[in-house]
Amino acid sequence: MPKIEFWCDLASPYSHLSAMRIDALAAARDIAVDWHPFLLGPIFAEQGFKTSPFNLYPAKGAYLWRDLERLSARERAGFRRPEPFPQNSILAARVALALDAADRGRFIQGVFRVQFCDGQKIDDKAALGVLLDALSLPRTALEAAQSDAVKARLRAETDEAKARGIFGAPFFVTSDRELFWGNDRLVEALDWAIGRY
Amino acid sequence: MPKIEFWCDLASPYSHLSAMRIDALAAARDIAVDWHPFLLGPIFAEQGFKTSPFNLYPAKGAYLWRDLERLSARERAGFRRPEPFPQNSILAARVALALDAADRGRFIQGVFRVQFCDGQKIDDKAALGVLLDALSLPRTALEAAQSDAVKARLRAETDEAKARGIFGAPFFVTSDRELFWGNDRLVEALDWAIGRY
Repeated sequence: MPKIEFWCDLASPYSHLSAMRIDALAAARDIAVDWHPFLLGPIFAEQGFKTSPFNLYPAKGAYLWRDLERLSARERAGFRRPEPFPQNSILAARVALALDAADRGRFIQGVFRVQFCDGQKIDDKAALGVLLDALSLPRTALEAAQSDAVKARLRAETDEAKARGIFGAPFFVTSDRELFWGNDRLVEALDWAIGRY
Repeated sequence: MPKIEFWCDLASPYSHLSAMRIDALAAARDIAVDWHPFLLGPIFAEQGFKTSPFNLYPAKGAYLWRDLERLSARERAGFRRPEPFPQNSILAARVALALDAADRGRFIQGVFRVQFCDGQKIDDKAALGVLLDALSLPRTALEAAQSDAVKARLRAETDEAKARGIFGAPFFVTSDRELFWGNDRLVEALDWAIGRY
């Protein structure tokens, strides 16, 4: 079965749009999705950015929020601008990595939904506990998320993202290491994975 | 007849891809294309960029060149990486503005083609003269391009781009002032212009 890696920071608005679409699009092509949460912060910092490009350049930020509003309306996805933006995604990413790989995508989709549709903060342990319960996922992931092993794994994933040439989110990576950046490239990435680009 | 404004810097590789596609896509929707060459340099400078984002961030640059190669192959458009990149687009933009509006698009398409398909430099008066001849456009545009009026017009267009919130290229602007950024938004922009988004 062909595979696609979905690399995302859990505070990334365009990753939200892809996370909500990828299951059906991948299933239609018999592609398995391999979810890779990582942290954009250290990668932005190496590019000299102290925060998200949304915040660094006012004209770009204004455009991107409007673009997200238009896209979300078209996809009939809810959309609220998180306050503050970006949210701190470290805890949520660690919880995602503490879960079984088979449950990871469902949790990540939940984190995006509560953040961008319901306007909830995602750096709050109690809120993530409620989300785990709602998804019938083990609350033990909250404790495991604080372990040295999981912390090290998130650092390793972030290093791996950087080594792959990932500089934003979302990124899709095919088995032959072809990179596709952005929600706008989701379908192309999946088509590439099955040789139909 | 609905109208779309196509804002581009004549050294912008993604603008090349849109310039080659926009005539047929707009004609199919009975939309008139209004070509607006401007200069990205001063707008990038205000964001603190000394050169193109292609050059500022190595991982991003490597990705974007690969993305352009893939897209060009799919569109069956030629693709060569200009040397140096970005080309100096001031003279070509002035010549475009010196031409009649009805001829502007054809000249801009020619500038992109010789630059990104044939690997020619676009800051050379002689080369632009050859291009004008090949397109049966008046060589007098080369002299007019050096006039104070045309120089002032290019500055005014660049100021107008900035005032509209344009921070990259290409940008498409509809009559109701909706902004669409990038070759990836060309079809959406045209659909918006006829109320079909």
